[in-house]
Amino acid sequence: MIKAGIVGGTGYTGVELLRLLAQHPQVELRAITSRKEAGTAVSAMFPSLRGRVDLAFTEPTRDALRGCDLVFFATPNGVAMGEARALLDSGARLIDLSADFRIQDLAEWERFYKTKHAAPELVRDAVYGLCEVNRERIRGARLVANPGCYPTAVQLGLLPLLEAGVVDLDHLIADAKSGVSGAGRKTELNLMFSEASDNFMAYNVPGHRHWPEIRQGLARAAGREVGLVFVPHLTPLIRGIHATLYARITKEADFQKLFEKRYASEPFVDVMPAGSHPDTRSVRAANVCRLAVHRPPQCTGGGDTLVVLSVIDNLVKGAAGQAVQNMNLMFGLPETTGLEQVAVVP
Amino acid sequence: MIKAGIVGGTGYTGVELLRLLAQHPQVELRAITSRKEAGTAVSAMFPSLRGRVDLAFTEPTRDALRGCDLVFFATPNGVAMGEARALLDSGARLIDLSADFRIQDLAEWERFYKTKHAAPELVRDAVYGLCEVNRERIRGARLVANPGCYPTAVQLGLLPLLEAGVVDLDHLIADAKSGVSGAGRKTELNLMFSEASDNFMAYNVPGHRHWPEIRQGLARAAGREVGLVFVPHLTPLIRGIHATLYARITKEADFQKLFEKRYASEPFVDVMPAGSHPDTRSVRAANVCRLAVHRPPQCTGGGDTLVVLSVIDNLVKGAAGQAVQNMNLMFGLPETTGLEQVAVVP
Amino acid sequence: MIKAGIVGGTGYTGVELLRLLAQHPQVELRAITSRKEAGTAVSAMFPSLRGRVDLAFTEPTRDALRGCDLVFFATPNGVAMGEARALLDSGARLIDLSADFRIQDLAEWERFYKTKHAAPELVRDAVYGLCEVNRERIRGARLVANPGCYPTAVQLGLLPLLEAGVVDLDHLIADAKSGVSGAGRKTELNLMFSEASDNFMAYNVPGHRHWPEIRQGLARAAGREVGLVFVPHLTPLIRGIHATLYARITKEADFQKLFEKRYASEPFVDVMPAGSHPDTRSVRAANVCRLAVHRPPQCTGGGDTLVVLSVIDNLVKGAAGQAVQNMNLMFGLPETTGLEQVAVVP
Amino acid sequence: MIKAGIVGGTGYTGVELLRLLAQHPQVELRAITSRKEAGTAVSAMFPSLRGRVDLAFTEPTRDALRGCDLVFFATPNGVAMGEARALLDSGARLIDLSADFRIQDLAEWERFYKTKHAAPELVRDAVYGLCEVNRERIRGARLVANPGCYPTAVQLGLLPLLEAGVVDLDHLIADAKSGVSGAGRKTELNLMFSEASDNFMAYNVPGHRHWPEIRQGLARAAGREVGLVFVPHLTPLIRGIHATLYARITKEADFQKLFEKRYASEPFVDVMPAGSHPDTRSVRAANVCRLAVHRPPQCTGGGDTLVVLSVIDNLVKGAAGQAVQNMNLMFGLPETTGLEQVAVVP
Repeated sequence: MIKAGIVGGTGYTGVELLRLLAQHPQVELRAITSRKEAGTAVSAMFPSLRGRVDLAFTEPTRDALRGCDLVFFATPNGVAMGEARALLDSGARLIDLSADFRIQDLAEWERFYKTKHAAPELVRDAVYGLCEVNRERIRGARLVANPGCYPTAVQLGLLPLLEAGVVDLDHLIADAKSGVSGAGRKTELNLMFSEASDNFMAYNVPGHRHWPEIRQGLARAAGREVGLVFVPHLTPLIRGIHATLYARITKEADFQKLFEKRYASEPFVDVMPAGSHPDTRSVRAANVCRLAVHRPPQCTGGGDTLVVLSVIDNLVKGAAGQAVQNMNLMFGLPETTGLEQVAVVP
Repeated sequence: MIKAGIVGGTGYTGVELLRLLAQHPQVELRAITSRKEAGTAVSAMFPSLRGRVDLAFTEPTRDALRGCDLVFFATPNGVAMGEARALLDSGARLIDLSADFRIQDLAEWERFYKTKHAAPELVRDAVYGLCEVNRERIRGARLVANPGCYPTAVQLGLLPLLEAGVVDLDHLIADAKSGVSGAGRKTELNLMFSEASDNFMAYNVPGHRHWPEIRQGLARAAGREVGLVFVPHLTPLIRGIHATLYARITKEADFQKLFEKRYASEPFVDVMPAGSHPDTRSVRAANVCRLAVHRPPQCTGGGDTLVVLSVIDNLVKGAAGQAVQNMNLMFGLPETTGLEQVAVVP
Repeated sequence: MIKAGIVGGTGYTGVELLRLLAQHPQVELRAITSRKEAGTAVSAMFPSLRGRVDLAFTEPTRDALRGCDLVFFATPNGVAMGEARALLDSGARLIDLSADFRIQDLAEWERFYKTKHAAPELVRDAVYGLCEVNRERIRGARLVANPGCYPTAVQLGLLPLLEAGVVDLDHLIADAKSGVSGAGRKTELNLMFSEASDNFMAYNVPGHRHWPEIRQGLARAAGREVGLVFVPHLTPLIRGIHATLYARITKEADFQKLFEKRYASEPFVDVMPAGSHPDTRSVRAANVCRLAVHRPPQCTGGGDTLVVLSVIDNLVKGAAGQAVQNMNLMFGLPETTGLEQVAVVP
Repeated sequence: MIKAGIVGGTGYTGVELLRLLAQHPQVELRAITSRKEAGTAVSAMFPSLRGRVDLAFTEPTRDALRGCDLVFFATPNGVAMGEARALLDSGARLIDLSADFRIQDLAEWERFYKTKHAAPELVRDAVYGLCEVNRERIRGARLVANPGCYPTAVQLGLLPLLEAGVVDLDHLIADAKSGVSGAGRKTELNLMFSEASDNFMAYNVPGHRHWPEIRQGLARAAGREVGLVFVPHLTPLIRGIHATLYARITKEADFQKLFEKRYASEPFVDVMPAGSHPDTRSVRAANVCRLAVHRPPQCTGGGDTLVVLSVIDNLVKGAAGQAVQNMNLMFGLPETTGLEQVAVVP
């Protein structure tokens, strides 16, 4: 049994981690910390966990997490980087679901997250936890930077094309749509039901924090810098990301086969048959990314634009599920352990 | 007073026309036909119109519409083309909200609508009712082809760029998201609440009927053929279209000013301040298109991609409202008559 | 033209008032105050009002409202009672959309609103603005207490029965469901999209602030105290209240006719045909209350329970629309002026 | 391993059964029949099951289900009663998720379901599958009539009161609200997204098919006939039922304790602490009924009305989950096997 702790379990990634870990056969949940809610029973805050999680939130002291084999950070950005060193020194391994360790270029990180990084040396050692790219390094990692939700959907949708070198790297476009839970469990006006329901809008077009993370991942796959326009949209779903990806073909190939081959042995990436339109609910509450590849006609220009459709549940494959997948790798378990939930449809 | 009739008033464009015409100070609604619902009071089908529309649906005979100055077709595609000639001969003017007269290239129309056109000679005479482009021709038109919803949002968003000749015409991308009412008042499985709610998906990526209409409009504006990838998505809104438009810059300009100038005198197109993100609810139930122009950074490639955000209510500026706007033009009324409803927010 | 001002125009009742007043032919909007947003253009906060409301929010000083014939308070509870006296002294008439002047029993008010009342003498003079009950008194009122949303729906649904003395007054039940906008434009966790969407729950069963207001109105109609169980529910709508009302019959009558007769001359109350089920969207964005009366079978007990269904838009007939209706009465205008919007369906 | 078959697996209860059975450790799914979809891969119709269910739909012949230990009917009403006899004779045990065997009074069944019953003798033998009432009889049953969704929520909410004989049996009120999936996967106009979204309404107030089923269950618990007003409402959720139940107290008791004691050993009924308001999402996708008991104040009448709040997921505890619970009982498995999914929140 893995003795696991969670720092900051009151947000959506936290409660989703609890949902998954409560059903995981190899995890013993030892502690969940929250300064604000210390003393409150987890199931009082989340009645969905009544009878399933018996812990109460505890103060985020070092003692609280003593003896944990693994600690998840489900905290806002900026917390994990301050606490990671001590936990690592105590022998725990870490999976950080925030953005603190995702970006190797510290200057870029600091520009987008508007704060000085507290643990630059850990950034270097951190392994970016996109299992489909870094599986082997994750197995041995002490500190895994769990990918962001948009970055997961966009990277999985573009990687086969970049790795194969068949598209224009300077003009990639990711038009991404996210459910509202992607913004976290916070009370901002634009996230209110009466504002976000029956409404659709783009946001942060001039620059979103996930842009440098996506760009970094795409550049690694391509072996050089890439140009990426990333336009996120807020859509009235609770969960779900749909990324519509546009890439100009520079080299002909059987793109359907390219995708099928790239992900043939991946347990959580599903390349759908040619002509498919994956919908977000087909992955609702499940740790799956579904992909479809299209080459729509154009009047002129020769039909040289590929369209890739990529869907995930932002809280599962885009956050807590991917974290559990990373945990399974880190602790030598079968990668799918505790992650076989079937998507909830309808 | 304009004596007006509606053929096929039982769909969403029909009931929206009724909502607008019931409040229009210069219209006397004479008849609404529906074969299926003949005899039913309009307000029995649409209780929202109780006390506001006293008509019953009538059989779609020629008599029913005798004496109308203007007849709206709010019928499925393929109906208006069979009945237009006789009504025109009787002296009525027509506004067709279906696709029968929108596309000049009959072969293309027939390819996409999978039927032989019944009135090719009328297609030639029909005026495409995008007021912001054809205002003068609409004033004198006998037969107006009211634009589709996606085509309205996409054309209004791209026209300034194409007319100014500042973008790559071969690689335009329109990533469009529509509320479910855009599919009409029909009982298809994918439009059910339990299917479409809390769900997001692309559809018809290989080819959507609005593609040739958009392409035709863009080509007119550009003065040559264009290449367009058009990806429509179904989003859990009742009303609203959000088009996210991507165009590669070929010639530098002050794009914000370009848009502001183009639409300076348009009563129903609102160019928002630089940096804005129009949301669909800001035009809910109102005859407005709101636009914003962005130039997001890119890592490489020099930031040469423009992003235009365009929102309309698909049933108003994308259908019934635009039809009333056309009517106002055709009958010499101030263009905004009966169209000054403020968007319903929240 | 009525010179009107609004205190506190940044909430949902405020923006809805703006929507209605911007279209009202006899109102000149002079000022909108908001301490927090002073200096901000109204249309910057609410883009739906771009081109329709040119004012900016101003500091809520006395000067700001000088010269207004009428001032609306769209403020949180507790504000109007502190400012009303001075405005009345300056010659303005007032319509308070908050709860400050609704309840004559000050002790009860103070118990439910948990504060001491600042202007008890004004409570006595205030006229409860339920037009269907107090029409004549409203015409002459200086200070109108605009009813709450639940109280409007429940009272209109029960009044005919209470006035006729045909039901058990000690065991009335109001099972009411409200859209989320009823809670106001505030950032509380349970009102977030990710919390309130795809979710349904009762709240405040042990006691809701609208209970004493409803009880007061029902008692007035009945001429004696009444017993009322009121259970409010939060339902994933933006707008709309559906009250399902249960009353035990004590005296037989033609209940359908009773309702039709009671509301025969009411412009904004629509008694639907027997057997109807009014839906909330049939009044969306319109100043209408629709009612239906049912007498469902029971196995035993003789079918002696009446069920009344009552729907309103909480922001229109339940708030801003009713306020405009009150204004029309106070200023001698036809009661329907500026309130003829047709409900937005779909 | 239980060899299981499903007749009619294309509706929502069918796909939900598939979701649960695919994760059940003791079930081998042998066949899923559908006349209309014979030959289609299940995962082609429901991409959420890709990689999890490898079957294709087969013709509903007797051969298709040969060798099954258990057959679930997830068919429309009227199908199971025609096919049950032959399947029982072949040795299979049956769980019918439709209404065919739920009501012992055949005349009443025929009145509500508007058809003659095809297998009256099986009705007598069928065991009503509300585990919390009939656990022992279910263990030995050959044919289980799985309860309806509303009946489950209402009965579990009222049983403790009726069994204890503490409320007025002649005037029970069940004000129930259901998500749209409760109506099944069928294309009716009122179930369309554009009709049901952002809308709320009562329906079938004069008489709903679940009324006789509820009444029968309540009468059994009470030991005499009962009077029940049942008002169902359609609410814009995909899943979830919230029943708000009203009962007049005739005998004082500690009602909180009464409920806690009644359900103390029930694995799937959760009596929440006094003062709670269970929300439907707290049981989303989980086989749980959560209850809360309130006694709200009244002005007169002495506060003698109890309010019970009862929530279930209509597709799980209200259909497929309860069916699996019945299966577990019938085959001697621990009752919770395969039913330990945690509710999906948010």
